Amino acid sequence: MSAIDDLVSELSRLPTIGRKSALRLTYHLLRQPGEQSRRLAAALIAIVEKVKPCAECGNLTEASPCALCADPRRDRSIICVVEEASDIPAIERTGEYRGLYHVLGGRLAPLDGVGPEDLAVAQLVRRVTAGGVREVILATNPKLEGEATALYVQEQLRDAGVTVSRLARGLPIGGDLEYADGVTIVQALAARRAM
Amino acid sequence: MSAIDDLVSELSRLPTIGRKSALRLTYHLLRQPGEQSRRLAAALIAIVEKVKPCAECGNLTEASPCALCADPRRDRSIICVVEEASDIPAIERTGEYRGLYHVLGGRLAPLDGVGPEDLAVAQLVRRVTAGGVREVILATNPKLEGEATALYVQEQLRDAGVTVSRLARGLPIGGDLEYADGVTIVQALAARRAM
Repeated sequence: MSAIDDLVSELSRLPTIGRKSALRLTYHLLRQPGEQSRRLAAALIAIVEKVKPCAECGNLTEASPCALCADPRRDRSIICVVEEASDIPAIERTGEYRGLYHVLGGRLAPLDGVGPEDLAVAQLVRRVTAGGVREVILATNPKLEGEATALYVQEQLRDAGVTVSRLARGLPIGGDLEYADGVTIVQALAARRAM
Repeated sequence: MSAIDDLVSELSRLPTIGRKSALRLTYHLLRQPGEQSRRLAAALIAIVEKVKPCAECGNLTEASPCALCADPRRDRSIICVVEEASDIPAIERTGEYRGLYHVLGGRLAPLDGVGPEDLAVAQLVRRVTAGGVREVILATNPKLEGEATALYVQEQLRDAGVTVSRLARGLPIGGDLEYADGVTIVQALAARRAM
């Protein structure tokens, strides 16, 4: 297999990159100074060698505990539970949340063979029962599997003596009511608030 | 800058990959065994170290002359002129063309500062006047700049004593007449053929 075919096939393994895109990306890189491909290669090696899950919260990080767990200005009494480490930057970007996180490492998906023991729920219960936590915010995805996961986690925390909340459902800001799906509208109606 | 941010920013440099896609790809790779990132990195290094333009036709290759120029079964009397090396696989995939190629390395684009001296036109004229060539097929892209480039190349080959042809324009097979653009329909009408 030629070096070009080889890169095309490696790029095609990535989600959302089909064979045609992979070919286009490969020829794009071939037109650039070699330095660009080398820098991308070095960045790929670096994530393999340096990035590990944080032993406390499961966030992906180069240091354990991660920068969030180690930050003395974060509110250690609130833990926001997410499915994946990639959900953390989305919440952090808002600049509105100052608590800690807990990464489950997926969501309950019996059809894909993902059961409770595959998620970091026991670790969460341990963190919470170790004390100092007053609220757990469930921020799993607003889909069937995410909801099931949230219910399961809530169940496991029943005796932990903490408030368990979840992110509000409703119309996304900037969205069109006309194009909102029915389930979202039903939830937005049910959770309507006095103005 | 963290290793994750670094990979996100390197991936974002690629065309069609925005910051969100780059983030998604990075976290995808972080969920895979490290071997996948390592193989992609190795493939990137390999194209930089191994792939060079063929000294004869400009095709990107690990050997010069490239496999096409070196193949004794190819018809050396026909040269197909393309803008980029990435156009060659598209023609090769058809299995219908058995001649050689010539890569211009771009198209005339005065607004982008690409003039005739930036393209491998002199090399083409040299190949043709060296003898043994009876036809040059211009396969530049059917766009304004590609057409201008084809006209310029044709002009340069005027005294070379070869037939200069170009790929037919018309309706793409499998396309819908209803959705074809006007210029394509005009060209398809003008080039209509008796059945």
